[in-house]
Amino acid sequence: MADPKLLQTFPNPASRRDYLIEHTHHEFTSLCPMTGHPDFAEITVRYVADRKCVELKSLKLYFHAYRNEGHFFEAATNKICDDLGAALRPRQLTIIADWKARGGFTSRVTAEWRAKKKR
Amino acid sequence: MADPKLLQTFPNPASRRDYLIEHTHHEFTSLCPMTGHPDFAEITVRYVADRKCVELKSLKLYFHAYRNEGHFFEAATNKICDDLGAALRPRQLTIIADWKARGGFTSRVTAEWRAKKKR
Amino acid sequence: MADPKLLQTFPNPASRRDYLIEHTHHEFTSLCPMTGHPDFAEITVRYVADRKCVELKSLKLYFHAYRNEGHFFEAATNKICDDLGAALRPRQLTIIADWKARGGFTSRVTAEWRAKKKR
Amino acid sequence: MADPKLLQTFPNPASRRDYLIEHTHHEFTSLCPMTGHPDFAEITVRYVADRKCVELKSLKLYFHAYRNEGHFFEAATNKICDDLGAALRPRQLTIIADWKARGGFTSRVTAEWRAKKKR
Amino acid sequence: MADPKLLQTFPNPASRRDYLIEHTHHEFTSLCPMTGHPDFAEITVRYVADRKCVELKSLKLYFHAYRNEGHFFEAATNKICDDLGAALRPRQLTIIADWKARGGFTSRVTAEWRAKKKR
Amino acid sequence: MADPKLLQTFPNPASRRDYLIEHTHHEFTSLCPMTGHPDFAEITVRYVADRKCVELKSLKLYFHAYRNEGHFFEAATNKICDDLGAALRPRQLTIIADWKARGGFTSRVTAEWRAKKKR
Amino acid sequence: MADPKLLQTFPNPASRRDYLIEHTHHEFTSLCPMTGHPDFAEITVRYVADRKCVELKSLKLYFHAYRNEGHFFEAATNKICDDLGAALRPRQLTIIADWKARGGFTSRVTAEWRAKKKR
Amino acid sequence: MADPKLLQTFPNPASRRDYLIEHTHHEFTSLCPMTGHPDFAEITVRYVADRKCVELKSLKLYFHAYRNEGHFFEAATNKICDDLGAALRPRQLTIIADWKARGGFTSRVTAEWRAKKKR
Amino acid sequence: MADPKLLQTFPNPASRRDYLIEHTHHEFTSLCPMTGHPDFAEITVRYVADRKCVELKSLKLYFHAYRNEGHFFEAATNKICDDLGAALRPRQLTIIADWKARGGFTSRVTAEWRAKKKR
Amino acid sequence: MADPKLLQTFPNPASRRDYLIEHTHHEFTSLCPMTGHPDFAEITVRYVADRKCVELKSLKLYFHAYRNEGHFFEAATNKICDDLGAALRPRQLTIIADWKARGGFTSRVTAEWRAKKKR
Repeated sequence: MADPKLLQTFPNPASRRDYLIEHTHHEFTSLCPMTGHPDFAEITVRYVADRKCVELKSLKLYFHAYRNEGHFFEAATNKICDDLGAALRPRQLTIIADWKARGGFTSRVTAEWRAKKKR
Repeated sequence: MADPKLLQTFPNPASRRDYLIEHTHHEFTSLCPMTGHPDFAEITVRYVADRKCVELKSLKLYFHAYRNEGHFFEAATNKICDDLGAALRPRQLTIIADWKARGGFTSRVTAEWRAKKKR
Repeated sequence: MADPKLLQTFPNPASRRDYLIEHTHHEFTSLCPMTGHPDFAEITVRYVADRKCVELKSLKLYFHAYRNEGHFFEAATNKICDDLGAALRPRQLTIIADWKARGGFTSRVTAEWRAKKKR
Repeated sequence: MADPKLLQTFPNPASRRDYLIEHTHHEFTSLCPMTGHPDFAEITVRYVADRKCVELKSLKLYFHAYRNEGHFFEAATNKICDDLGAALRPRQLTIIADWKARGGFTSRVTAEWRAKKKR
Repeated sequence: MADPKLLQTFPNPASRRDYLIEHTHHEFTSLCPMTGHPDFAEITVRYVADRKCVELKSLKLYFHAYRNEGHFFEAATNKICDDLGAALRPRQLTIIADWKARGGFTSRVTAEWRAKKKR
Repeated sequence: MADPKLLQTFPNPASRRDYLIEHTHHEFTSLCPMTGHPDFAEITVRYVADRKCVELKSLKLYFHAYRNEGHFFEAATNKICDDLGAALRPRQLTIIADWKARGGFTSRVTAEWRAKKKR
Repeated sequence: MADPKLLQTFPNPASRRDYLIEHTHHEFTSLCPMTGHPDFAEITVRYVADRKCVELKSLKLYFHAYRNEGHFFEAATNKICDDLGAALRPRQLTIIADWKARGGFTSRVTAEWRAKKKR
Repeated sequence: MADPKLLQTFPNPASRRDYLIEHTHHEFTSLCPMTGHPDFAEITVRYVADRKCVELKSLKLYFHAYRNEGHFFEAATNKICDDLGAALRPRQLTIIADWKARGGFTSRVTAEWRAKKKR
Repeated sequence: MADPKLLQTFPNPASRRDYLIEHTHHEFTSLCPMTGHPDFAEITVRYVADRKCVELKSLKLYFHAYRNEGHFFEAATNKICDDLGAALRPRQLTIIADWKARGGFTSRVTAEWRAKKKR
Repeated sequence: MADPKLLQTFPNPASRRDYLIEHTHHEFTSLCPMTGHPDFAEITVRYVADRKCVELKSLKLYFHAYRNEGHFFEAATNKICDDLGAALRPRQLTIIADWKARGGFTSRVTAEWRAKKKR
């Protein structure tokens, strides 16, 4: 399973302000866990940083780690949400995954992270 | 009439979280009940799963079952909404059907499911 | 003046539910009452049916009846709104008319129907 | 300065109803007051009429009157808003001016009219 | 570091009214502080002026000043927000920076300015 | 049948040169001769003038004359080609008619005029 | 197999002239002969009529006849080409079939008809 | 009439090679000589320079000179072609003028320059 | 290296006719041989079959075989051309590979196959 | 001046075949030699390699070298053509430079390289 330890962070340069950061990865690919065939998605990470921002190159490597792993759409999106939530402890975090055409369907899964403990 | 028993489900992998799943089928086709001519639509299933998610291949087969059946736009959209509501018992469910050009018109029908009993 | 008696209805197949029906006619044409030159518009009928739905072919014939009549943009849009409101007695009704380029302008008129008596 | 007396009106044909009228002029041009070079914009007039509607041909002539006048983006948009507000005394009025590319920039100015006295 | 003194202002020609001004610069470029490679962005300045409006040519020169400087996406967007906030003291101010494709990603950073002292 | 005498001409201002003139009418409408329902097309007149150019307003009136006449796609396109060929005696002439969606089809008919006598 | 006798013709109204007729059907659907799953295509019939033109409604019914038949892309396109060539004996005929996404692929098959005997 | 003396040139920096230069002006405007109303066009100057290239700012000023002059589409395009041909004496020159919507029409006029004397 | 033996064929159903088959794969991915990072391409196989057509599912599996292999753009395109040429011995064959954005570049490589022996 | 020695090459992996390679750089920027303001272009390098292909990363660095240099559109395009022709000695080479909007203009310069000596 794609390792969340690949995610690296740097200190938020403007933590006094709630501002929105969105990174959209256009080249996400994993495998269908049932057929082994490749799936493709566009993944958006949208967050308000608290102390930490995700370093973009590490985010790319984390996404590359899914390339040869089998994941259902719903599960992959939630795992990305959990991993980034744990790594960044952000003020807000939403993951939007747009899965490309498969059998006449396109799919979008949208998950929002909430800290389990209060800040 | 397209059989809702075709719909298969799997357990929601992240039921602790309210997250949004949207599947858009680009290749829905049924027949006009008055003329027998084919109609075409793009159908979006947008829901927040409770315990069950709809399995995508079974959803495709369920939609294929409309291919040679006569349905009015309004009735087909509501039947899809009822069938998926009954199969998934979701936290929220919306069906959006975009019917392609017919006689200089395009049409959209949008129906929202509500559980008859409280959860 | 285009005759609202052209509008035919059928019983709402899902009246227990508030759901949205939108029909967009891409081929509306009438005449400018001042110059006699043709005007073109795209007309959207968006409504929540109560007991009656508008039959699509009759709606087409009703729109065709404007072909050789002179109407100002504002007046035509309100007449369509009044005629459909009276024929359907819907829970909600909005008419959106997008008039094509005329003298370097495009125009949109949007009117919402409200029942004069309570339901 | 473009003369607001060019604006002509006609009685609102459906004053019992609050409905929205939008006219978008795609061919507005004026001059930069600093360089004398031409500027181009798309201007939208969006309003809810009270007693008066603006006559479309007179609106075109009013906009043509800016052709050889120097105006800053911010000032031109506010003058159009003031002139139409005074001529129509509408229930609501918004002017949206989309200025085309100039020095690598595009600009939009949006102004809303409010009656100084109550209606 | 790009000098905020490059920003020049002129008096708001319609300060009695809260109206929205948006300038989008399509040709922003700076350098990646880690690799030295060029980054490209589209920057939108959206504000409600109080007493001062930003002069468009000076805004262009201010943006040009980033051409050979190294800036992280998050830091550059916040610096632009701080510099314009200090220069204009506006009623509202939002900066939206859309960074072009880098390593399969596009990014958007959105920051809103708030006066530290009350007005 | 739409009267070719509606077509007016003016002398070619640059007859020493073979240059191409194209006028595209976006608002052509006629009736289906079988059902009486309206058809819509975009008609391009592309020609190299010899002595005469077609006057644009007269071309519009000539096209408007089809509004309430029944014409098959193939026949209408050839009649337009014949009428303009006879009126202009051009060096070259092509008519391209793009008929809008009807029963799931779009159609294009392209006809080229040749003088019956040699020039 | 879809019956070419469904194709009806009418006499070419302008047979003295070589002119091009194109009909594009946006709603072709057949079945995959291996999996039984539906395929969708956009089919263009482009021809220069000799004595006969294809009647558009009969062409629609001929295409509808493929709805529940299994056909490979290459074979279906060639059968359409053969059937229309035999029915129309045109001066030229090309069939272009654009098959929608299947397994990450889109496909186009283009076949040209030539009379077996000389004209 | 717009003065061709406004056109300035500079020596072709690569005259040993036949290479193609295209400048497209998106903001051309002149007046209709019959109604006085503004016309808008996009003008492309496409040429192979011989000894001289046209200086871009002077080309802009030359086009601005049409702003308040009355010109027919056909005549304006040919005048631009003649003026640039005389100023540049190019190896090849084509002018393409795309006139925006007027009365439901768009128009394109394309003229090619040929030296009257041999080179 | 991706194994050409994955490619399966079936007999050309219309070998008496030269007709064009194009399959475009939208989901090709391989690795950069220098950095190991993923590359993405859209690959079109355009050919005139002689005796054999490529079976579409086998073509998909052949393309999937590149997923974890390192290939330069120019070499991958030529290998695909060679492998399909050898498998099909077609009358004509062209491979067009559109490589997605990498370092601010997009690339297209187009190779045509010619039989080494005469047919 | 941007140094052609930055261009690195690798041996053509398929030199037995004439095949087409196109690299489009979307992020070219240089300075206007008259005003010092930045210019932006999209540059396409289209060639048939003989013995050498251009290495993509070196091409990027070569283009980056223009960032702070003043170049006229026509001269820059020809210099790129000359430098790549000298470095690659290709069988064919075309450079297409699309310069972004400047003063209401967009420009394209297209230059083709020919070897001075025969191959």
